[in-house]
Amino acid sequence: MTNAFVLRLSSFVNEVGIVTHRVHFTPFDKTVEVPYGALIVEAARLAEIDINVPCGGQGRCGRCAVVVQNGNVRRRSTIRLSAADVQAGYALACQTVVEGDLEIFVPPQEEITRHLTTEKTAAKISVPFEYDWRVHQTVVKYFLHIEPPSLADNTDDLSRLERELSKCCDIRGLYAPLSVLRTLARTLRDADWRVTVVLDRGGAAPRIVDVLPGDQTYSLYGAAVDIGTTTVTVYLVDLYSGEVVEMAADYNGQIKRGEDVISRIIYASKGNGLVELQSLVAQTINKLVERTTIRHHIKPHDIYKMTIVGNSTMIHILLGLPPEQIRLTPYITTINHPPVVLANELNLNIHPQAPVDCLPGVASFMGADITAGVLSSGTHDTDKVTLFLDIGTNGEMVLGTREWLVSCACSAGPAFEGAGVYHGMRATTGAIEEVYINSQTYEPTYRVIGGGKPRGLCGSGLISLLAEMFITGVTDKAGNINLTLPTPRVRQGEHGPEYVIVWASESDTGEDIVITKPDIDNLLRAKAAIYAGYVVLAHSVGMTLKDVEQMLIGGSFGQYLNIEKAIQIGLLPDLPWDRFHFLGNTAARGAYMALLRREAREEIAAIAKKMTYLELAADNTFNEQFMAALFLPHTDMTQFRSVQKLLNGAE
Amino acid sequence: MTNAFVLRLSSFVNEVGIVTHRVHFTPFDKTVEVPYGALIVEAARLAEIDINVPCGGQGRCGRCAVVVQNGNVRRRSTIRLSAADVQAGYALACQTVVEGDLEIFVPPQEEITRHLTTEKTAAKISVPFEYDWRVHQTVVKYFLHIEPPSLADNTDDLSRLERELSKCCDIRGLYAPLSVLRTLARTLRDADWRVTVVLDRGGAAPRIVDVLPGDQTYSLYGAAVDIGTTTVTVYLVDLYSGEVVEMAADYNGQIKRGEDVISRIIYASKGNGLVELQSLVAQTINKLVERTTIRHHIKPHDIYKMTIVGNSTMIHILLGLPPEQIRLTPYITTINHPPVVLANELNLNIHPQAPVDCLPGVASFMGADITAGVLSSGTHDTDKVTLFLDIGTNGEMVLGTREWLVSCACSAGPAFEGAGVYHGMRATTGAIEEVYINSQTYEPTYRVIGGGKPRGLCGSGLISLLAEMFITGVTDKAGNINLTLPTPRVRQGEHGPEYVIVWASESDTGEDIVITKPDIDNLLRAKAAIYAGYVVLAHSVGMTLKDVEQMLIGGSFGQYLNIEKAIQIGLLPDLPWDRFHFLGNTAARGAYMALLRREAREEIAAIAKKMTYLELAADNTFNEQFMAALFLPHTDMTQFRSVQKLLNGAE
Repeated sequence: MTNAFVLRLSSFVNEVGIVTHRVHFTPFDKTVEVPYGALIVEAARLAEIDINVPCGGQGRCGRCAVVVQNGNVRRRSTIRLSAADVQAGYALACQTVVEGDLEIFVPPQEEITRHLTTEKTAAKISVPFEYDWRVHQTVVKYFLHIEPPSLADNTDDLSRLERELSKCCDIRGLYAPLSVLRTLARTLRDADWRVTVVLDRGGAAPRIVDVLPGDQTYSLYGAAVDIGTTTVTVYLVDLYSGEVVEMAADYNGQIKRGEDVISRIIYASKGNGLVELQSLVAQTINKLVERTTIRHHIKPHDIYKMTIVGNSTMIHILLGLPPEQIRLTPYITTINHPPVVLANELNLNIHPQAPVDCLPGVASFMGADITAGVLSSGTHDTDKVTLFLDIGTNGEMVLGTREWLVSCACSAGPAFEGAGVYHGMRATTGAIEEVYINSQTYEPTYRVIGGGKPRGLCGSGLISLLAEMFITGVTDKAGNINLTLPTPRVRQGEHGPEYVIVWASESDTGEDIVITKPDIDNLLRAKAAIYAGYVVLAHSVGMTLKDVEQMLIGGSFGQYLNIEKAIQIGLLPDLPWDRFHFLGNTAARGAYMALLRREAREEIAAIAKKMTYLELAADNTFNEQFMAALFLPHTDMTQFRSVQKLLNGAE
Repeated sequence: MTNAFVLRLSSFVNEVGIVTHRVHFTPFDKTVEVPYGALIVEAARLAEIDINVPCGGQGRCGRCAVVVQNGNVRRRSTIRLSAADVQAGYALACQTVVEGDLEIFVPPQEEITRHLTTEKTAAKISVPFEYDWRVHQTVVKYFLHIEPPSLADNTDDLSRLERELSKCCDIRGLYAPLSVLRTLARTLRDADWRVTVVLDRGGAAPRIVDVLPGDQTYSLYGAAVDIGTTTVTVYLVDLYSGEVVEMAADYNGQIKRGEDVISRIIYASKGNGLVELQSLVAQTINKLVERTTIRHHIKPHDIYKMTIVGNSTMIHILLGLPPEQIRLTPYITTINHPPVVLANELNLNIHPQAPVDCLPGVASFMGADITAGVLSSGTHDTDKVTLFLDIGTNGEMVLGTREWLVSCACSAGPAFEGAGVYHGMRATTGAIEEVYINSQTYEPTYRVIGGGKPRGLCGSGLISLLAEMFITGVTDKAGNINLTLPTPRVRQGEHGPEYVIVWASESDTGEDIVITKPDIDNLLRAKAAIYAGYVVLAHSVGMTLKDVEQMLIGGSFGQYLNIEKAIQIGLLPDLPWDRFHFLGNTAARGAYMALLRREAREEIAAIAKKMTYLELAADNTFNEQFMAALFLPHTDMTQFRSVQKLLNGAE
């Protein structure tokens, strides 16, 4: 064993005589010393070796498998590993306990492929309302010519600046932070008393963000940020014109520490997890900010205001607030209306004194992404009965009009994001995004993102596949695969009945791409949770889904949703197609609106206060409705007359 | 040369080929590498060797002398060094340039002896006005029993706390900083929803300082701090009873970087000087806070509010604001009314979220120590024409009544603090504090602080000596020593005529303790500046000094001042003795009052706004008055009739 790198988890450990073991990692050739009973994943972290734990270390995803080449371990769980795998030495790093000196091989970790669709839509955003920065914007710049002091007029520097601001712009009661005061004397004199004052008028008292030499009023920038569990989106906004001048999006850097919010919460609850996750998302935002500012030929420090939306877990983690209670009954956040903080408090690399405004949410599973979505979709401002839906890892929905708003969140799970499905994957290169099945031969045709060989199926591909399997009779209403069909594509697999979409010879991975009965059950549970949510919301206000006059769908997933297929599996209610509208990233758009106008910011707070949140865990009818929806498309076919008609026609 | 410690000033230096030299310091055996042309004091700082520079590195005090044992240097100045000293290798570290590899011996640095008088007065402070913390105090504690959440009531943690506060105490619109939010969920649940909320009601919105488990309302502490240029004083205050429960004082840790404000400003302007000085004063405060809290059996973190006074330079440095402009015409501060900041912003080791309130001043040389002194002396709240004086390193004075206040500051220099006088010293053990001279034999008798052998003279000793020399004819009105007197105690010395107070055989230092003509001139300039200040103030409101109905003297120096002697040299105006009142540390007492009562805090802001400040640099009559006062006691003896009478009697 090479001892080039021997680090200790804690020197205390040895001093008190606890037994420790050395763990040597290949191919890195790093050795660490850990106490008996430590997890392999903890040893790896100590050795600064990155092992992906998409499920947050719960032993559910199987992605953290390593090979124990030598030494004693105890496997607490071997889920996702076959007997042969275990025989070959595989062990889940997050579930395997060190019980002796070890030799561990870490397989190459899957890199996240960059293929994001939001960047494409950059050009589409236009200023969504009348906008005059002088009137609507809280962050402003003023160019001042301040009178230099003399023995006869020895007022202090800040008072001189205040005097001028009150004269020129009627601004009084200024607050100046130490950071500004510490450079004020120098700046005023170096600039010969001609300075640009950047002011934040968003709080109780106008606050000086910075004092810059000379006239720098020629530009003023802000940023709107949407922190998705999967994707982070940044809009760079010209605060004079109100236009989005650049946009960038990328995977949330937290993904490797958990794919869904629950995994992130679990990860955040352990050791230094919260600090690490905070840092990862801040780094993601900083990287995206840098990308937009480089393209626009400005500096990140030229951004003087940031508005952020995200679900409550994402916002808690960004603010460094422990999110544990979000997933524990009765599901309580620390705060739904966070205070405005400064960029430097969160290690965000824009102007350090820039206000960072995390928009308000409603509950643990009804965050600012949804209140912002309600704002930008106009759900709160219409006479039509509107159902607003944002399907991502969770399914959050709001039913309402100008007069009232009710909302709920369904733990749909990440099935539609490709997780929990054996050949599921994200909507990146190699993902099948659409499938058709020949009703005679049961042969599929499909479309692959990027056009190459397929590697798996993304959410829209899964919906389309499931709908086709149901319509063509490959499955029955309950999702059972009919093994009697005259095609080799249906067969008994290791995990039960399965349907082969791609033969190994045509797949990028060299193995068959299949959908199994457990996969179908996962998808049914996900869509049933969402559909049950619609019904509970409607019932709560004495309506049925037929009363919905428009259905607005936000989230990037929505953009690739085939309405017909989604209705066929019962994911969307059976309404005339013209009532559906796909709005794209409604969360980011809401953040953008709140960034621009003080009134929009106030509106979103009013939305958050006005919205009634139904906690489904406390709702008995939800479970009934969920059970009733666990079929294709539903047990009650009167709710899906268009699908019934199709099936009748097919018969 | 030992290379155990080789540090580089900047690795850049060598990379670009600039010539560097090694400087080896004994007895420390440390070596550093510095560029050609660096100062020895810079090399010492790099080597982390402490060399005292009381004058701030101006080459005026001579205290930073080191011995160059080997190597080439260039002495920019050798003031305070004799030819023999230079011959022996002595050089001023702050004025000597490295021009080759050096071998430097650093003599032992003088430690500041601890003998402070303020600690003695601890018992004397009583609550200075009616005080009921419920009404007057801005920082309060509330014990709350918060309703635990349920599925039916899933309001967020902060809102639950707010709801309870509004119910029990009618407090609304709360601001909760991230530091509080980050532990809120845990604290509420660990404490079973019974918590003590510490609230700061001093700002626009009530701010949560901390949330503590259980009922911790049994005590509440604050601290009042006076940052003197020489001495820092801390009062630990029970905010329930209003009493000062402990007091501690010590030298300002900045002293070794400059004895007076000007030296400190110069030091702060160089390199990392400001950060270093800030850290030194913060350390001094922290040490004193710790001393008081240990005695009182509490923790520094139990202090939830701090009020600070000091002159404008001390406050600028504490806040990390560059003080350069304070000493440059037209003498402009960055800010006279600093914002309230948090303890952790200044590295003050009390509760990190405690508000730290630096009280307002008026101008560069009229700081919060004086506005606080006006408050606590009652100068602003009397019908009597009052002259308030605070003599320290500077002489600041205020003339006024309930209706008006005028003020000025005289750069008296530190002569009365023992500096600028050859055998001058601070009022510590070994200082002569009182002298009498026999008018027949010219033999002195004296009293020494601590009772041992004398080492020099402190301020009150110098005043008493000067008065006696004048009254007994050892000097004339102009301060010239009469060398014809029949005593060996008057003689021609190296620096001109001198009078021997202590013979070498009786002194602690083994050398004669003398006062020289240059010493006397320094003292005359100091007292003349102060007297001229009185006159200018009185004239500015159409009065003479005879109109002064009471004279209030603040500052620890005042406590040891002999009125009779001070009048005889013309330091105090010739008023009936019963008009003089010594008030002790009026600055600290003002800070203490503002700590307790919101109204007192508002009063001090009103004082700062109301007070007219006369800039003596812009005043022609000041110079005339100064010249007229450069005599014992004054050229115009009609202003000193009591002294005239004494002299007439003596004749």
